[in-house]
Amino acid sequence: MDWPTEGERPLVRAGRLSAWAVAGLPDLRPGDDLARLAASALERAGGLRPWDVVVVTHKVVSKEEGQLFPLDHFPPGPEALSLAARLGQDPRMVQAILAESTRVVRAEAGVLVTETHHGLVCANAGVDRSNVGGGEMVTLLPRDPDASARRLRSAWLPLAGGGPLGVVLSDTFGRPFREGAVNVAIGVAGLPALSDHRGLRDALGYELHASTIGSADEIASIGELVMGKVDQLPLAVVRGLSWSGPEQGSAPLLRDPQRDIFRR
Amino acid sequence: MDWPTEGERPLVRAGRLSAWAVAGLPDLRPGDDLARLAASALERAGGLRPWDVVVVTHKVVSKEEGQLFPLDHFPPGPEALSLAARLGQDPRMVQAILAESTRVVRAEAGVLVTETHHGLVCANAGVDRSNVGGGEMVTLLPRDPDASARRLRSAWLPLAGGGPLGVVLSDTFGRPFREGAVNVAIGVAGLPALSDHRGLRDALGYELHASTIGSADEIASIGELVMGKVDQLPLAVVRGLSWSGPEQGSAPLLRDPQRDIFRR
Repeated sequence: MDWPTEGERPLVRAGRLSAWAVAGLPDLRPGDDLARLAASALERAGGLRPWDVVVVTHKVVSKEEGQLFPLDHFPPGPEALSLAARLGQDPRMVQAILAESTRVVRAEAGVLVTETHHGLVCANAGVDRSNVGGGEMVTLLPRDPDASARRLRSAWLPLAGGGPLGVVLSDTFGRPFREGAVNVAIGVAGLPALSDHRGLRDALGYELHASTIGSADEIASIGELVMGKVDQLPLAVVRGLSWSGPEQGSAPLLRDPQRDIFRR
Repeated sequence: MDWPTEGERPLVRAGRLSAWAVAGLPDLRPGDDLARLAASALERAGGLRPWDVVVVTHKVVSKEEGQLFPLDHFPPGPEALSLAARLGQDPRMVQAILAESTRVVRAEAGVLVTETHHGLVCANAGVDRSNVGGGEMVTLLPRDPDASARRLRSAWLPLAGGGPLGVVLSDTFGRPFREGAVNVAIGVAGLPALSDHRGLRDALGYELHASTIGSADEIASIGELVMGKVDQLPLAVVRGLSWSGPEQGSAPLLRDPQRDIFRR
């Protein structure tokens, strides 16, 4: 990782935190203006203040950006047919996943974990399958989630008095070793994604062991708790954070595959 | 996993969340009464209410329970010597890690990931090394973190008007694929560790895809954000959650090794 020099250390801190989901966003279709519709919903929910972070579930962004396709748009090639047979999955779904991926990390026990073109490692490359109006559809992740986060942040900045303002695009990822998915940050704008405690010492002078913290992932997790899964509220506000250091999007959260002992 | 029957579905939800760290807990020594000292600190910070969750970093619990040992208490055996040479680590530290573990999951690139006797998979079996009063010491995880959480919960229940009250013991774990450690729940009492959305449908009638959520891990992550790493505040209160379903400690968060494609 390309770490900033001393004095530009990325740190995210919180005083007293509060967080809530924002209601009132209509179901989006491709071409709808999410930034504007969400701005109205945010205003009705009390507006934004400097240092707020807005967590947005990526799915509404994917829909707005037209990342919603009929499953039949992915006629399976030989690799998809072979993997689908092995995993017991729909070959078109596997084709959609492979089209989003640069490599397969694991394909066994019915589970397909890949590395996406964004560098994310997750089940099904983040491709969600659903029934929309009787047709089988797939939603892909946004093409460039950091760019989406930056775009939304620019649109919402006036609501927050010009900022600082953070935007985190979230998805729900399963994890090795632990049951239960958690929300993580797939797009980040306006705040550092990681906190770097390397070399910092605790109150007693001991160097801290967990040297970097995935702060944006932890913020995304707060979003999950207040948005829930059933009410389908795709927006949340987290208030009470502060941060310093450079903005580098979500890239600092992606482990270099060469350094990842679980990707070999 | 042994899932409860319908009607006992574990679900954790949040309305408007708030969270803060609790100051005023002195540095603990083995035999100190953490429950009582923390109760005073919690009372000075405004007390507890029904439906609060207290997040406690496991380290203060480990100290109180005497899980703090001189490094020299772990004379390395042959496996520790061999692993330590391979990883470039102190053989005594490796011996302490192996003593806490049932199996080695990965040992490469200087990283030792094991499965602990609790069933946790993490770097160094959760063993922390530090300098205390000039001597090299290691802190182990609590022997039974769920029992520790239950004990603290019982002691703090009167502060919360008899409850409901949740207690989450946290540790900071690194993760495959992603940079930045996050807090997870290693001990849970008073609330379900997972939310089970299997079979639930969203507002439009579509079945939800991420079927279980690691709610207690997400709550632990809130604890990290408000406690930070430098200020060494080991207690936080999270307010605004509600839950239903059975209490099963932290066990539902531990993936069955047979079902874990990354542990083979």
